[in-house]
Amino acid sequence: MARSKKSNEQRNFEDVAGNGVLHRRALLGRGLAFAGALGAGAGAGINSAAAEPLKEPDWALSPGDPVPAYQTPSKYAKQVVRTLSNPNFEPRTSQSRVPHQLLDGMITPNGVFFTIVHDGVPDIDPSEHQLLIHGLVKQPLIFSYDALLRYPMTSRIAFIECGGNSAGLFSPKPLQADVQALHGLVSCAEWTGINLSTLLEETGIVPKAKWFIAEGGDAAHVMRSAPLAKALDDAMIVLYQNGEPLMPGNGYPMRLLLPGYEGNMNIKYVRRINLLPEPAFSYWEAQIYTEPLPDGKAYQFYFVNEVKSFITKPSPGLNLKEAGLYEISGLAYSGKGRISKVLVSADGGQSWGEAALQEPVLSMAFTRFRMPWRWNGGPAILQSRAWDEGGNAQPTRAEFVAARGELPSVPPLLAFENHHYNGVTSWAVDQKGQVTHVYA
Amino acid sequence: MARSKKSNEQRNFEDVAGNGVLHRRALLGRGLAFAGALGAGAGAGINSAAAEPLKEPDWALSPGDPVPAYQTPSKYAKQVVRTLSNPNFEPRTSQSRVPHQLLDGMITPNGVFFTIVHDGVPDIDPSEHQLLIHGLVKQPLIFSYDALLRYPMTSRIAFIECGGNSAGLFSPKPLQADVQALHGLVSCAEWTGINLSTLLEETGIVPKAKWFIAEGGDAAHVMRSAPLAKALDDAMIVLYQNGEPLMPGNGYPMRLLLPGYEGNMNIKYVRRINLLPEPAFSYWEAQIYTEPLPDGKAYQFYFVNEVKSFITKPSPGLNLKEAGLYEISGLAYSGKGRISKVLVSADGGQSWGEAALQEPVLSMAFTRFRMPWRWNGGPAILQSRAWDEGGNAQPTRAEFVAARGELPSVPPLLAFENHHYNGVTSWAVDQKGQVTHVYA
Repeated sequence: MARSKKSNEQRNFEDVAGNGVLHRRALLGRGLAFAGALGAGAGAGINSAAAEPLKEPDWALSPGDPVPAYQTPSKYAKQVVRTLSNPNFEPRTSQSRVPHQLLDGMITPNGVFFTIVHDGVPDIDPSEHQLLIHGLVKQPLIFSYDALLRYPMTSRIAFIECGGNSAGLFSPKPLQADVQALHGLVSCAEWTGINLSTLLEETGIVPKAKWFIAEGGDAAHVMRSAPLAKALDDAMIVLYQNGEPLMPGNGYPMRLLLPGYEGNMNIKYVRRINLLPEPAFSYWEAQIYTEPLPDGKAYQFYFVNEVKSFITKPSPGLNLKEAGLYEISGLAYSGKGRISKVLVSADGGQSWGEAALQEPVLSMAFTRFRMPWRWNGGPAILQSRAWDEGGNAQPTRAEFVAARGELPSVPPLLAFENHHYNGVTSWAVDQKGQVTHVYA
Repeated sequence: MARSKKSNEQRNFEDVAGNGVLHRRALLGRGLAFAGALGAGAGAGINSAAAEPLKEPDWALSPGDPVPAYQTPSKYAKQVVRTLSNPNFEPRTSQSRVPHQLLDGMITPNGVFFTIVHDGVPDIDPSEHQLLIHGLVKQPLIFSYDALLRYPMTSRIAFIECGGNSAGLFSPKPLQADVQALHGLVSCAEWTGINLSTLLEETGIVPKAKWFIAEGGDAAHVMRSAPLAKALDDAMIVLYQNGEPLMPGNGYPMRLLLPGYEGNMNIKYVRRINLLPEPAFSYWEAQIYTEPLPDGKAYQFYFVNEVKSFITKPSPGLNLKEAGLYEISGLAYSGKGRISKVLVSADGGQSWGEAALQEPVLSMAFTRFRMPWRWNGGPAILQSRAWDEGGNAQPTRAEFVAARGELPSVPPLLAFENHHYNGVTSWAVDQKGQVTHVYA
C-alpha cells in the first residue's frame, strides 16, 4: 500500500446532519476519494498496483462450466437466499424471507421473492386451472389460462408486502435480528397481466355489486374481500413476474394484484372472483388479518401498506471494519403512491439529511434511497424516514406505538400477532463497527 | 357455451390501419368484448359458468410442496428456458437465447437472460477476484470485491444486445426460425454498481488518456477498446443484476456496463481497465466485431445498438386458432435514448398505426409496445417499426440491406458473419393462423 499523501487526504464534503451525514451530491463521486478515506490498512482491499502483480487464478487459465438452459446464482453467492420459517415442512404456514441486506436496486429477483404459503406450494397444471368470475355479474364466465393469454396485457412495477412484515417491531424490546428477519416479507417485481376491469367488462356487472371476494385455487383457499372500486381501478390478473411466468410460490399460473394492498389480498392461484353487495368476512379477515388497537378495538379491512422505509446497508450482520466513508442505502415505498422524500439520520433522529432517490421513482414500487456517510468510529444510530406524494409521513416508532400499541411479546419470525408496522427502524453502530437493532 | 346474442356482438372499434389494426385505446378494455369476439367454440377457453362446475383438482384438495430457499419455475413452464447453441459443450463459443415469445414485460428475468461465453462459464471466487485500473492514471489501483461493495452505488434499467443478434436477417432468404432464434441475444435488466467515473477519480487520469481497454478475467479474456468519454459518462462496474449478485453467465462477480453499446463491450468478469491514448485493436475488435459493408470496406468500433423493434406475439410457434381480437406485443429499444414511437402494420407496411408504449419508457431500456388487432382470418403480414427520441428511425429491411448488404448464407444460430441488424422483422400469418418469418 503506497499512495501519495495528497490522494490520502480526505477532501471537503458538506455535512448536512450530525454525526457525519453528508450532502447526497457526494454520491456523484466528485472528490469522493474513498480510496484515501479507506485508510492505510491492506484490509481495505484497495492496493497500489505497483506493489503486486494481478493474480492468475484457475478460472483465468482454464475453460469454465457448461451453459445451463435456466441459470442460477454462483455457489459463492449461496448466502443470497431466503430464510425459511418452516424448513422441515411441518403442516403449518411457511414463510420465506428476502435477504435485503445482500441485494441492491429496486427489483427483487424471482429466485428470492418472498413467499407465504399456508399449505405448501401447489404444483398447478395451467391447462387444468380455471378462473371463474361470478356473483353479481350479468354473465358468469370461466376463463382458461390459454384464453387469458390472448387478452391485452399491461405491466407495472409494484411492491407486495405481507401485512405481518416487520411485526417484530411490535415487541416492547428490540429483537436482535437482521433486516431479512425483520423486514423480509416485502418484495418488488414487474408484474404483467390483464386488467381485472377488462374481464369484468366481459361478464358485465350488476349495479348492486360493491365488493368482491377472491379465492385461491390451492388447498389453503385463502379468500379476501376487497372493494369493487379497486377491481375497476388498478387490479390485475397477473401471469408474469419480472418477465417470466409467475413462480410457483408467487401464484403460478395466475394471481390477483391489488397494488398497494397487503400481501395476502393479492390472492395467489386465483380461481374465483365473486361479486357481492358487501364484504364476505372470510376466516382470513375475520380471524387473521385484523389489527388490534390499544383501546381493545381492532382495525378490520385495513388494506393499504402505509408509507415506510428501512435501511438495508449498513444493517445487522454487515459490520463496519474501520472509520471512513460509507453509503447508507435502503428501500422506501408507499401503498398510496410515489415516494417524495427520504430523510436519513446518524444520530438517532436528532438531525436529518435528505437522501438521493434512485430513478425511476414509481407509484407503489420500491424506491432505493442512498446517502453518503462518514463514520468517525464512534457510536451512531442510523434511521430513515419516508414521505409519499400525498404528504403521508412514516411515523417514528414512538408515534407508531402511541397509535397502535405494542404486544407483550412477539416471536421474531411469526407475523400474525399484529400487522402493518410502518414506523422507523433504528440500527445502532458501536465503536467496533457492530450493527444491532435498537429502539431510539 | 351459452351467451346472449348481445354480448356476442362485436362492438365498434376504430381501425387505424389496414387489415384490422385498431386504435390503441381498445387496449383499455372499454367495449373490448374479447369473450364475444373469441367466437362460439369451446376451444376459445371461455365458457359460461352455468354450464359446468369449477374443477377440484388434486392441488385444491391436498398440501403442496416444501418451500425452497431459492425458487425456480414450475415444471409446467419448462419450455420457458434458453436455447443453447452448444449443448454438448464443445470447445467453442456457447450462446444461449432468450424465449422472448414466452415472456412479457420489460425485465428479462435472471434465469433466462442471454449469455455468450467463449470458453465456458467461469466459477469465480469473488474474494480472489481483482479489478486493476492502470495505464494513463496517476495512481494505478487494485480493488477487491469487498472494497467495491463500500462504494456509492447507482442503478439503471438497461438492455444489453449482442452485436450479432438478429444476424440471421442478413440471409438473402428468410430463415424459418422463431423470435428466440432470430432475436434471442438481447435482454434487459436492472443493473446496480459503481460509476466507473468514481473509480477513475480514485486513480486520477493523465490528460493524454483518450481510450481504455477493458479485459475479462475468465479464460477467454475478451478485450475491447472504448472511448474514455464513455467511461466518464455512464459506464458502470456492475455487481447486481435485477437486485441479486450477477449470474455466473452474466459476469459474476463484476462486469462493465456501457449502456447502449454492443454486448461484448460490456466486459464480463472484468479484471482490468487500462487507460490509453488510442484504441488497442484487440483480437476481438480487429478480427471479430467488425461489420463488412457492400463496398468491401468495414465498420470498426461500431459501438451503439441502433433503434430497433420486433414483435414477440404473435410470432412463429404462437399460431392463431381462430379469427378475432388479438394483442400484438413486442419490444423496442435504442442505444441512443428513449423510444418515442412504435408503429405497427398488419399489411406488410402499406399502412401503419401507432402502438401503446408501456410506462415507464426509459433511456436505453426495453420498451414494451402493444397494439390491438382484429384478425379477419385472412393472410396478414405483421411488422413493427420504432423511433427514438433523437428522431432515429428503424429502417425497413430493404433500406437496411441497401446500406449494409446481405450475406450469401448465414447459419441461423451463429452471429459472427455480420452485425447490428436493426431492420424490420416481418411475420406472415396464413389463413390457418400459422406464423412464419418472411421478407416483406
